[in-house]
Amino acid sequence: MIIDQPVHVFLEQLSSKSPTPGGGSAAAVIGSMGAALVGMVCNLTVGKKSYESVEDDMRATLAAAEDLRERLVFLVRADMEAFDRVMAAYALPKDNETLQQARSSAIQEALKGATEVPLACARACADVIRISRVAAELGNRNIISDAGVAVLAGYAGLKGAALNVYVNTAAIKDQAFVSEKLSELNALLTGLDVATEEIYHEVQSRL
Amino acid sequence: MIIDQPVHVFLEQLSSKSPTPGGGSAAAVIGSMGAALVGMVCNLTVGKKSYESVEDDMRATLAAAEDLRERLVFLVRADMEAFDRVMAAYALPKDNETLQQARSSAIQEALKGATEVPLACARACADVIRISRVAAELGNRNIISDAGVAVLAGYAGLKGAALNVYVNTAAIKDQAFVSEKLSELNALLTGLDVATEEIYHEVQSRL
Repeated sequence: MIIDQPVHVFLEQLSSKSPTPGGGSAAAVIGSMGAALVGMVCNLTVGKKSYESVEDDMRATLAAAEDLRERLVFLVRADMEAFDRVMAAYALPKDNETLQQARSSAIQEALKGATEVPLACARACADVIRISRVAAELGNRNIISDAGVAVLAGYAGLKGAALNVYVNTAAIKDQAFVSEKLSELNALLTGLDVATEEIYHEVQSRL
Repeated sequence: MIIDQPVHVFLEQLSSKSPTPGGGSAAAVIGSMGAALVGMVCNLTVGKKSYESVEDDMRATLAAAEDLRERLVFLVRADMEAFDRVMAAYALPKDNETLQQARSSAIQEALKGATEVPLACARACADVIRISRVAAELGNRNIISDAGVAVLAGYAGLKGAALNVYVNTAAIKDQAFVSEKLSELNALLTGLDVATEEIYHEVQSRL
């Protein structure tokens, strides 16, 4: 699996002609890095005498960060599999009308799967941004810049995942499905550009 | 080396109590992913009949993307080494005035190195944003969303590296050095927030 490859090999494969891993998987890795950095800030805050008053918040945030990091790692692979299913559906035979209809249904189903994965990635990245705020506001000042990199990663993952939702929904015929997914995405995106700016500035003010 | 570790191990180490790899290395990896995604768009554009007219631009952009990807991978390790040198300098003995002065000089030298690395990362990420624009405007429309993830990654890498420049310059006494480095960083940052937005919207318009 791609996630078991060395980082430099992952980067080479990302750059290669092969369509997977692509931007969807990259967005999930970037989001996971954001979650990992929140985890790091929490790990270097818990147990410190001068941060005793925020110990409970940091422990809860650490648990959330670890959950999000793992969920996003899972989505790296899920994104590649979803893309492969779309490609496999497009490759189905279309020699007669029956086959054409079966192929068209398979494509539509695969595209729905390829929409759900980046939407799940966007959801997780939105949560990365939220927990970055806790890390930025309450975390150990000595490594607070890492909370700033975390929020940037969460935001890049969110907006990158959004592009993959747009791409796949554009080819889906079931308009009820499309409008439901785009509504959820819009709700996820709302306010998080401003929140990201605020958290970045909070970090700058605590450097 | 961290870059030789599997991606999921890198993420675990990023999240751990260990201060390296931290946000500086993460910013370099994210920037490198941006460069890799520009490379992917170019790789899937060159040689295509319908993109013949942009073949030269795509080849030049591909070469730049590969150079930036490698440069940023190099900076992942350089960031960890620079941080270790700062820690080693702080750990020097300070039992008498001579030792204190030697330690203080060593810390100042190490902090300068720990400023140069994220500044080099910021420089490379600014270039990732620039080449993302070429990929977004001229690249194969079928995978244009990857150019969008690329610019987001470049921007997150740039702003993340900037935080690491701020952190290290804050403790440097040589004000001429500090003002030179902060001027260069400001010049690098200028306009790239707007450029990133523009490139993202260009991608959306070509989805």
